Amino acid sequence: MPAIRLFGLPTDINSSFERGAAAGPAAIRAALFSERGNMASELGAEIGTDIAFTDDGDLQLTENTSQDDAAIRRHVVMLQEDGEVPLALGGDHAVTFPLVEAAATGFGPVNILHFDAHPDLYDDFAGNPRSHASPFARICEAGHAARLVQVGIRTLNRHCREQVARFKVEVIPMADFTPDRVPVLDGPLYISIDLDGIDPSAAPGIAHPEPGGLTVREVLAVLHKQTAPIVGADIVEHHPGRDVGDVTAILGAKLVRELAALIDRNGTYKN
Amino acid sequence: MPAIRLFGLPTDINSSFERGAAAGPAAIRAALFSERGNMASELGAEIGTDIAFTDDGDLQLTENTSQDDAAIRRHVVMLQEDGEVPLALGGDHAVTFPLVEAAATGFGPVNILHFDAHPDLYDDFAGNPRSHASPFARICEAGHAARLVQVGIRTLNRHCREQVARFKVEVIPMADFTPDRVPVLDGPLYISIDLDGIDPSAAPGIAHPEPGGLTVREVLAVLHKQTAPIVGADIVEHHPGRDVGDVTAILGAKLVRELAALIDRNGTYKN
Amino acid sequence: MPAIRLFGLPTDINSSFERGAAAGPAAIRAALFSERGNMASELGAEIGTDIAFTDDGDLQLTENTSQDDAAIRRHVVMLQEDGEVPLALGGDHAVTFPLVEAAATGFGPVNILHFDAHPDLYDDFAGNPRSHASPFARICEAGHAARLVQVGIRTLNRHCREQVARFKVEVIPMADFTPDRVPVLDGPLYISIDLDGIDPSAAPGIAHPEPGGLTVREVLAVLHKQTAPIVGADIVEHHPGRDVGDVTAILGAKLVRELAALIDRNGTYKN
Amino acid sequence: MPAIRLFGLPTDINSSFERGAAAGPAAIRAALFSERGNMASELGAEIGTDIAFTDDGDLQLTENTSQDDAAIRRHVVMLQEDGEVPLALGGDHAVTFPLVEAAATGFGPVNILHFDAHPDLYDDFAGNPRSHASPFARICEAGHAARLVQVGIRTLNRHCREQVARFKVEVIPMADFTPDRVPVLDGPLYISIDLDGIDPSAAPGIAHPEPGGLTVREVLAVLHKQTAPIVGADIVEHHPGRDVGDVTAILGAKLVRELAALIDRNGTYKN
Amino acid sequence: MPAIRLFGLPTDINSSFERGAAAGPAAIRAALFSERGNMASELGAEIGTDIAFTDDGDLQLTENTSQDDAAIRRHVVMLQEDGEVPLALGGDHAVTFPLVEAAATGFGPVNILHFDAHPDLYDDFAGNPRSHASPFARICEAGHAARLVQVGIRTLNRHCREQVARFKVEVIPMADFTPDRVPVLDGPLYISIDLDGIDPSAAPGIAHPEPGGLTVREVLAVLHKQTAPIVGADIVEHHPGRDVGDVTAILGAKLVRELAALIDRNGTYKN
Amino acid sequence: MPAIRLFGLPTDINSSFERGAAAGPAAIRAALFSERGNMASELGAEIGTDIAFTDDGDLQLTENTSQDDAAIRRHVVMLQEDGEVPLALGGDHAVTFPLVEAAATGFGPVNILHFDAHPDLYDDFAGNPRSHASPFARICEAGHAARLVQVGIRTLNRHCREQVARFKVEVIPMADFTPDRVPVLDGPLYISIDLDGIDPSAAPGIAHPEPGGLTVREVLAVLHKQTAPIVGADIVEHHPGRDVGDVTAILGAKLVRELAALIDRNGTYKN
Repeated sequence: MPAIRLFGLPTDINSSFERGAAAGPAAIRAALFSERGNMASELGAEIGTDIAFTDDGDLQLTENTSQDDAAIRRHVVMLQEDGEVPLALGGDHAVTFPLVEAAATGFGPVNILHFDAHPDLYDDFAGNPRSHASPFARICEAGHAARLVQVGIRTLNRHCREQVARFKVEVIPMADFTPDRVPVLDGPLYISIDLDGIDPSAAPGIAHPEPGGLTVREVLAVLHKQTAPIVGADIVEHHPGRDVGDVTAILGAKLVRELAALIDRNGTYKN
Repeated sequence: MPAIRLFGLPTDINSSFERGAAAGPAAIRAALFSERGNMASELGAEIGTDIAFTDDGDLQLTENTSQDDAAIRRHVVMLQEDGEVPLALGGDHAVTFPLVEAAATGFGPVNILHFDAHPDLYDDFAGNPRSHASPFARICEAGHAARLVQVGIRTLNRHCREQVARFKVEVIPMADFTPDRVPVLDGPLYISIDLDGIDPSAAPGIAHPEPGGLTVREVLAVLHKQTAPIVGADIVEHHPGRDVGDVTAILGAKLVRELAALIDRNGTYKN
Repeated sequence: MPAIRLFGLPTDINSSFERGAAAGPAAIRAALFSERGNMASELGAEIGTDIAFTDDGDLQLTENTSQDDAAIRRHVVMLQEDGEVPLALGGDHAVTFPLVEAAATGFGPVNILHFDAHPDLYDDFAGNPRSHASPFARICEAGHAARLVQVGIRTLNRHCREQVARFKVEVIPMADFTPDRVPVLDGPLYISIDLDGIDPSAAPGIAHPEPGGLTVREVLAVLHKQTAPIVGADIVEHHPGRDVGDVTAILGAKLVRELAALIDRNGTYKN
Repeated sequence: MPAIRLFGLPTDINSSFERGAAAGPAAIRAALFSERGNMASELGAEIGTDIAFTDDGDLQLTENTSQDDAAIRRHVVMLQEDGEVPLALGGDHAVTFPLVEAAATGFGPVNILHFDAHPDLYDDFAGNPRSHASPFARICEAGHAARLVQVGIRTLNRHCREQVARFKVEVIPMADFTPDRVPVLDGPLYISIDLDGIDPSAAPGIAHPEPGGLTVREVLAVLHKQTAPIVGADIVEHHPGRDVGDVTAILGAKLVRELAALIDRNGTYKN
Repeated sequence: MPAIRLFGLPTDINSSFERGAAAGPAAIRAALFSERGNMASELGAEIGTDIAFTDDGDLQLTENTSQDDAAIRRHVVMLQEDGEVPLALGGDHAVTFPLVEAAATGFGPVNILHFDAHPDLYDDFAGNPRSHASPFARICEAGHAARLVQVGIRTLNRHCREQVARFKVEVIPMADFTPDRVPVLDGPLYISIDLDGIDPSAAPGIAHPEPGGLTVREVLAVLHKQTAPIVGADIVEHHPGRDVGDVTAILGAKLVRELAALIDRNGTYKN
Repeated sequence: MPAIRLFGLPTDINSSFERGAAAGPAAIRAALFSERGNMASELGAEIGTDIAFTDDGDLQLTENTSQDDAAIRRHVVMLQEDGEVPLALGGDHAVTFPLVEAAATGFGPVNILHFDAHPDLYDDFAGNPRSHASPFARICEAGHAARLVQVGIRTLNRHCREQVARFKVEVIPMADFTPDRVPVLDGPLYISIDLDGIDPSAAPGIAHPEPGGLTVREVLAVLHKQTAPIVGADIVEHHPGRDVGDVTAILGAKLVRELAALIDRNGTYKN
């Protein structure tokens, strides 16, 4: 079974509206280790007992995106060389580009399961091609995605619909969503969870609330049906300054447990 | 395609428990025009690009209900004469009476799709026949409703059940609700959304939270299946003083976008 | 029809993480009698009009668990002797042990329908066998449960799975839950609702938020399908200090109304 | 040194605007015993180490004011007979009437130091002579107050100014307040702290916020300069449903420590 | 004594960071008329009993600043011609320009007492000369201010210090502030209260929190020492979406009462 | 003038009650660079214009205290060798030990001005000598403090009073505090601001609220009177999960500006 390595990416310099997501890793980590909850996952296995799981703390980032991208890639490549699976906590969604790039370096183009209210496919946003509204445009252009399946989407405008067509993204908009409509993807599988894909009633601690999102149970149903080996995952965009009673941090911690149990259950990817 | 005219009705003098809904229009307008979100609807069209949409600001109201009723009717009649569709932001639910009355003046009795936790059918409430708990009693008495379909209802007491029978209201109580049970109504169609019809987890910024309400997705499913031309709509009872992180204002703004796209899609009503 | 007696149990000395639930009864009572809502239940009957319902206020508890257990048992036994049905407001979940013990004294082993995020089956928690994480271990050991059906569970760890097997608890974990999977139980029926069984978006005012819980509609669907006479019920773990806009207190008050209407509808238990 | 007996009075049936204060004792007790804080007072002595202090839990109240008044008087008289000093947690301010009445029974008319935004001198409020807006009218009429000194007052209307004149109340309005203007009272001294006397920024968890109140430091300065033996004290009107991050409960707990240390320091009253 | 006319200006189109202040008038009005508080002022007089006071509701504004400016001026001029004193509720601070302009039209250059965290003297802000950061630059340029005294200031940068020198503004920065340092101004006196001049602990519902502000008592002390006849006043920048338990709306309502009592006490201005 | 180097220390493993302070640096940085505020200090100078100021981002910490201590010391020593002044954002207060140790390595024993509700002098807390309740015990034992002056203290228990005596700490308890009683210290001066020294109304986003604290103006008055060259400073214990409307993060950002301006004004320390 693969060992899982948790690390935080405390950066929000590519946020388009307001900063705050850099505080996400610390808030989720505090919830994960709080005695308010326990270490069990709904799949049965427990972190620290049944699952090999290490918390590396946060990477030291610099407010310079190209330096940070390089540091993130280096860290992931190092873990991959040890046969370990990275589980990253953002930070804003811009961090998914170097995370997936490193995965593709190790495994070739990956299949991506992406939870989000927004497609994050802008060619650029307000002039910034590395905006948190753009990582999947960069990933697709670079050929890092074999398939890109997007779940939770409910804000598609004309430009993003054009990008969906251009990159052959498989969007399952909320208006048509049921867990059954989400395909079971092959490995190597990468999972990216933007917490704003979930309904803001369940995840208020995010910068861009968009009502009408996924329930936590729908997210778990989509995750639990995935059987392919996972080569990387991230949970991004937690903005503690807008949270209510720490509930989004607690949700992030639950998703850490569920992703860890899923990575463990699905086993190691072999080319 | 009909042009849509948004306007606010900042009044809460007919609120039975606590005032606050007069601040609703300004809060929803701020969310609608904030760069936190975008202008896309889930139906595809965008306000300002694909849909003719004008914001008229707020009507000047006076704390005198009969004067205010007259001003609201005048404004709606003026829009109707120009072939435009009124989309009103309350204020408390008492404003729906003059709004529907003006619609009935122009189009004859209308079919009404009404989202609410409460039937708002009180003969009077605490002695006030124009209470925000009574607009649909006034509408039915005046013969302005061809059909009245109520969705989200979960507080029926004996008096209101008697009023339901008396006025032949078609109530779909929450205990039996699925979107499939809501009929597709003919035009001329009027849509009234009291935000407390939605579950208070998704819409906390209202005066009368009643757990067990509609999800945002259920509201959108009911709306999107309506195909008849729409002659008027309102979104009422947002009380910003009880909101959490502006999420109810953001929801109100999303419903403005979805109603505008629906009015646009369903086209102009012709007798 | 049985008369219903509401009483509060303001104690939280057996809470494992933080105190606060002792304030629950007063907060729920204030919501129940507030003019913000009304007295109707979704089953149709109204407290005070159609249902015999008395509020006894709070029992005087002492911060000494064995004394408090005795006081709770005495109060319930007294009500039972008068043919009345106890409806208790916690306090933390530890109070369910004396409540069920008294019911079993009167009626023999009871069938228990238990809503919770956690199974509360710890042999002891942090050395406390009367912890709020342990009442159902004590109930099962004592032979007070004919059947124990648990709904909403989403935190099972190894120890608790072992306890489930040992006590033959019927757990319906959230990952498999639909209301249809919950059995209709025979009488004598006892119902225990830990508010954290409900999703924290709808019930934020609790000490241990666990995302992915029951919706309020799911709770009501499970309740409304129960047809057996009810001999006791409780609503526990409301922690007002973590509530948001009183919404959990309002939910607790709604559940009082729904349980009262259900007790009334299902009639008196006869051996 | 006198032994101090803490007890809660969880009642809010005499609240004029909204209930909620019945949850106050549980919330303050949870804060007092939480490991978030410690047991030291600013006077130096610590509860449990240096000061004889017992928590009796809450009195069982009944929603019937005359019964409750009798129960409160009995409890206080019992403590007084043992030479102990009552320290009560409200509940709404109506409880101060039986508390002071019992003190006057034991010691004769008392000198009262009263912290509040409001004089609570209404002859009746909305027809209720036992309203939480009226306890000091009842106390004065009954002759239980040798002197009544009110601090924090900032809402005097004509009726209350007339009552001030009638009862010779010594009001130090906020507009003139400095701690130096508050007299040092003789014993037997009774202290009543309505938390809304403190500025709502420091005590948000109350039903009637009135900006421009006392700082916590000003309250402590007024308390610490009192040198007379204290025969009773109360802290009332905490409404946890409006609190923010439990800070008013934490403030209530701090005032428990400070009052206990003051009672201990000032010693036993002797006629 | 002059009659006072309250009216709302629900506009926030000139807000530089985020909209929301347009909802201010409705929120303050709801607090003013709520039974949570009463109508007494600390000066003794009561609205509705001792003071002639009318609420005109909100002016109908249009999202077009020059049209809105004209409408505001017209309304004020009309009131002045009737010998009445305007008391306006913003809206963002941009509304103070037409308010003062109208006052100067009637009375010649006025003496202005201005409470604010910021001097609002930007020549323009982000290209907008009518920004809410610029009204006092426009007022000074137009010669409408005989004296401009600013209290609460704690964010002076170089540009604003240059504007202070250019316009001979009398700034009393927070670092030096005591109420004694504020001059008693002659009439005709205009008072403008930006709620962010007050400390954000007491006034959280504003867009630009700046710690270290005035206490409510300091504001009242400065107001109460003013003896000159007042020809106009405003309370601006309340943003209900950021408020906590309505406390800023309640503060705004208290300032309405205090300003009304002060206008009444100081009498009519005579050239 | 010395150049200032800001860096974050996102760690909370030595927090005694609940984690969360690791998210502090990101939250304060987001507030500092938000367009909600500006870059001016009350001393006049502006960051980025008048003051040499660099943000280094966060140090990469490891959840291992001795490794982290070494990393912090290395970073500070490196800055000191370049003649730059470290300004650190915690994190919990445990980080002050390596920060001061590094300062003492460079400059010899330092004079420390320490703002806090608690003396943080525990010999150990719950068995942890590196607890956030103990850093000043470690600093004093190691001889790194020439003088230690503590301001804001209001929780002294017996053990801590003994430690005060043992280490000759100069405590100015809140009960006696005025800014005038704080001495002007000589250089080399180190300033440590635990945000819980400030009143929880102004700084709610902390783990251990203790009412009766310093106002922001009192903190600024004590800072501004210090004239000695500053060799290091920290702002610690911001816990965003408990913040309200980001106001504590905004306060932290203001203190960054004020400390930077003070360091700049007071100039470089020379032995």
